[in-house]
Amino acid sequence: MELPKRMADMAKEVDERLMHYLDYGKYPKLRKAMIHYPEAGGKRMRPVLAMLVAEAVGKRGKATMPFGCALEIIHNFTLVHDDVMDKDEMRRGRPAVHVLYDEPTAIIAGDALFARAYAILCDTDVPGEDLRRLVRTVSETVYLIAEGQQMDIDFEARQTVGVEEYVLMVEEKTAVLFACAAEGGAIIAGGTDQQVRDMKECARLWGIGFQIWDDVLGILGDEKKTGKPVGNDIRNGKRTLIIVHALEQLKRPCSDRDVLLNALGNEKASAEEVGEAIAVLERTGSIDFVTKQAHEYARKAKELLQCLPPSEEKSMISSLIDYAVGRDR
Amino acid sequence: MELPKRMADMAKEVDERLMHYLDYGKYPKLRKAMIHYPEAGGKRMRPVLAMLVAEAVGKRGKATMPFGCALEIIHNFTLVHDDVMDKDEMRRGRPAVHVLYDEPTAIIAGDALFARAYAILCDTDVPGEDLRRLVRTVSETVYLIAEGQQMDIDFEARQTVGVEEYVLMVEEKTAVLFACAAEGGAIIAGGTDQQVRDMKECARLWGIGFQIWDDVLGILGDEKKTGKPVGNDIRNGKRTLIIVHALEQLKRPCSDRDVLLNALGNEKASAEEVGEAIAVLERTGSIDFVTKQAHEYARKAKELLQCLPPSEEKSMISSLIDYAVGRDR
Repeated sequence: MELPKRMADMAKEVDERLMHYLDYGKYPKLRKAMIHYPEAGGKRMRPVLAMLVAEAVGKRGKATMPFGCALEIIHNFTLVHDDVMDKDEMRRGRPAVHVLYDEPTAIIAGDALFARAYAILCDTDVPGEDLRRLVRTVSETVYLIAEGQQMDIDFEARQTVGVEEYVLMVEEKTAVLFACAAEGGAIIAGGTDQQVRDMKECARLWGIGFQIWDDVLGILGDEKKTGKPVGNDIRNGKRTLIIVHALEQLKRPCSDRDVLLNALGNEKASAEEVGEAIAVLERTGSIDFVTKQAHEYARKAKELLQCLPPSEEKSMISSLIDYAVGRDR
Repeated sequence: MELPKRMADMAKEVDERLMHYLDYGKYPKLRKAMIHYPEAGGKRMRPVLAMLVAEAVGKRGKATMPFGCALEIIHNFTLVHDDVMDKDEMRRGRPAVHVLYDEPTAIIAGDALFARAYAILCDTDVPGEDLRRLVRTVSETVYLIAEGQQMDIDFEARQTVGVEEYVLMVEEKTAVLFACAAEGGAIIAGGTDQQVRDMKECARLWGIGFQIWDDVLGILGDEKKTGKPVGNDIRNGKRTLIIVHALEQLKRPCSDRDVLLNALGNEKASAEEVGEAIAVLERTGSIDFVTKQAHEYARKAKELLQCLPPSEEKSMISSLIDYAVGRDR
């Protein structure tokens, strides 16, 4: 399909501007710590989404560049801090910032990225009052991301987590930044109130679908697309929606529960043990449940695209939504 | 003198608005972690400064409230993160956020405070284009604070630090936020370009003077004002400008150097040993050097007040500058 190629081109444009924006500051160590994640690449989904929405709403895709780069920098700042908190030592195949330097430097680099993002946001070519709307939505969004991260951290220490609160965590930790990207794109393009509202909601739903579909890939594996081997999330014990759902079904002691808990977080689990755990997830209907949920979020997201006039970019957003929940195959 | 009373009244007004602004968010643990430092009080010097400048420039003191509270919140966010990095366990007589909760919660609470500050900033009653100026200067300021904190952390690992780079660190870590407060106050009050520029520079100079005078108090003691006992900074081994200057004078091995290093960072140093170390600092001219520097920064800061028309608030700013370098006695 054409989608990845066009997206890759747009992502490349974002890369260049991003590196230009991060060529800033006089303290070499801090500069290097700040660009460590951004320079490692990524799909730049948030800036690309902002660009597509602004183009679809009012042919102002290019004008989203500072805003989109600001969101990408914010995304990277949260990754730097998350890795410190989660003690994750690798990211995108490279050592985490706090491993390459130290924890204080990683905390400072995150803070500096966050500050830099707002300075870049100010470069957005919109009337001052629209800039106010952008600053406000970005700030409210980062607040929600912080809440989501706090929930995620606190879930780790708990025995059980419910499906509903898990989805709320996913929404705050991930989907809200997609929502902000789409909302900002619509604002920058001078969209109507309804377009701004609907595109925000569309991207929020999409973001949730995208993230929970990622949980499916983490268990069923998708080496081609993500490099994740089968059962990856089972071996590393990640609490995903599939696991949350399955453990809700298996509250009482039973052999299926034992089989699942035996493989979960067991890095040395054999392929057979992982296979048995996946069979349990199929019997509890958890893989099916999450797949259906992801598709349902995507369906609702696509409905909201009605607010946009027909355009190539509108079709691309629609394809992107399908792509994000594995419906492009 | 009248100053503390009026300042205390203004600080109280700030307190109320601050608590109102931080009554936000749905996750109780995060909310509590966020207000832990702000509710412990403080002189609210940054919001008070913004208010005084705006009143002196154009009778718009009250209009600085959201901006001033945003700066106070940013100040508190940096304290939360600094305490994590420095492993400081107490702040304002209470356990640090990362001690009361844990490090991840402290990192998140800092990030959330930072995000919240920008949302509050958007409430400032100024034209959109002036909001753009405020967002830009706040962002550039926080970037400098991050650089200053990085320098401070890196200095700890070094044998020697020069006077010049130490002053640069103090400027970035502390003075720039004062500068931002005064600049923002002038912008909000519709000041001329010269007023905006001069008030920013005035507060920057003042901020450096204030901070290095604090170093003098930390060594000579000022129990009445700050509760710091004589030699406090000597016993805890804090690297202040006085120590930096003295060690520059005592590069070669000598008995004065031994006496100073014996007491420095030695929590069990006797009153006599501390007294001898202070005598060394007098012999190297370091206490005198820093005192003169502080007064010189204050003098230059006061010169810049020329850009303001006469007013009660202008006199208050002038008194505040004297107060901050111990010249009010």
